[in-house]
Amino acid sequence: MEFSSSLLESAVSEFAKLPGIGKKTALRLVLHLLKQDPGNVEAFGEAILKMRREIKFCERCYNVADSTTCAICANPLRKQELICIVENIRDVIAIESTQQFSGVYHVLGGIISPLDGIGPDQLTIEPLIQRIPREKTEELIFALNPNIQGDTTIYYIQKKLQGTPVRITTIARGIAFGGELEYADEMTLARSITNRLPVEKYVQH
Amino acid sequence: MEFSSSLLESAVSEFAKLPGIGKKTALRLVLHLLKQDPGNVEAFGEAILKMRREIKFCERCYNVADSTTCAICANPLRKQELICIVENIRDVIAIESTQQFSGVYHVLGGIISPLDGIGPDQLTIEPLIQRIPREKTEELIFALNPNIQGDTTIYYIQKKLQGTPVRITTIARGIAFGGELEYADEMTLARSITNRLPVEKYVQH
Repeated sequence: MEFSSSLLESAVSEFAKLPGIGKKTALRLVLHLLKQDPGNVEAFGEAILKMRREIKFCERCYNVADSTTCAICANPLRKQELICIVENIRDVIAIESTQQFSGVYHVLGGIISPLDGIGPDQLTIEPLIQRIPREKTEELIFALNPNIQGDTTIYYIQKKLQGTPVRITTIARGIAFGGELEYADEMTLARSITNRLPVEKYVQH
Repeated sequence: MEFSSSLLESAVSEFAKLPGIGKKTALRLVLHLLKQDPGNVEAFGEAILKMRREIKFCERCYNVADSTTCAICANPLRKQELICIVENIRDVIAIESTQQFSGVYHVLGGIISPLDGIGPDQLTIEPLIQRIPREKTEELIFALNPNIQGDTTIYYIQKKLQGTPVRITTIARGIAFGGELEYADEMTLARSITNRLPVEKYVQH
């Protein structure tokens, strides 16, 4: 692409660095901003700069936060003895959007994946282990993606906690609501038969 | 979506205002920026703010510019007597990318479209008319999209220029290179037969 303005060119090339944004999309976004009121563009730029400069990670659960403790950990209405373990911030947002979970979180910052060179030390597993006696945790719910890496991570943490009086559970895996049996993979279908639920229990939900 | 950080929430909602960017994509982009070095995010924000604050429109051709005259108009190697008329900045970039045009531009800022309430007065038609005697223009090339609005705009400007000694042309319309005859619409195919080219002329290109 040939630009007649270096200001335009550098704005486009910055946008094109974002994942999934090509040169043409970047140009479309920049020309959109160029048509907006200067005030709106200032608000856009400032929101991003402020976010990067001021955002913190919760000292307790490693979720994003505006101060040293995140809004979820600081909420006295949440059950502090119930910890949901997730891979990343996106998963926290997904679970919060269901409005079905009343405990607190622990963000691992990834999952154990030897092929990608990610071992337990790069994750927040040690701080999690330390939280449990300090916070008198009663239950840990693993909400990790159902794959080999997720299962490895669960297995590793569970091993570390042997002898600790805490209940360890994982979110249910099975056929998704609205999904179709014939298109489910064999492993999912097999597990959903093994872990079948009594109908009375299912109907409660 | 439920966020535990208002800083994150406002960055996501700013991104989600961009055309074609939904809430989920906005979150993905913001979390990508959050993982980058602070310096990279500063560069991103500053490039956009600087672009909006400092960008100018060329006083002669209305293209985007870093100063009062754009790089194309200021280039002494460009034929100043040959003006290509385009709808918007995106079209300038598209034509410049072909590296086949050695004249200068005139950006109309839109096309005549009564249904959208856009008349000749909202476009830079008057400044174009004034450019022609002043710059001793020899040829005007219309590079507008081939549709009713484009043709209306060409007709209007051409009428205004009656009696002015300037050659008026339009970019060729026809079957696109790599296109297939059987999928071309009737109007395109009909015009491409009417405006057929001698083969010697075609082979030159």
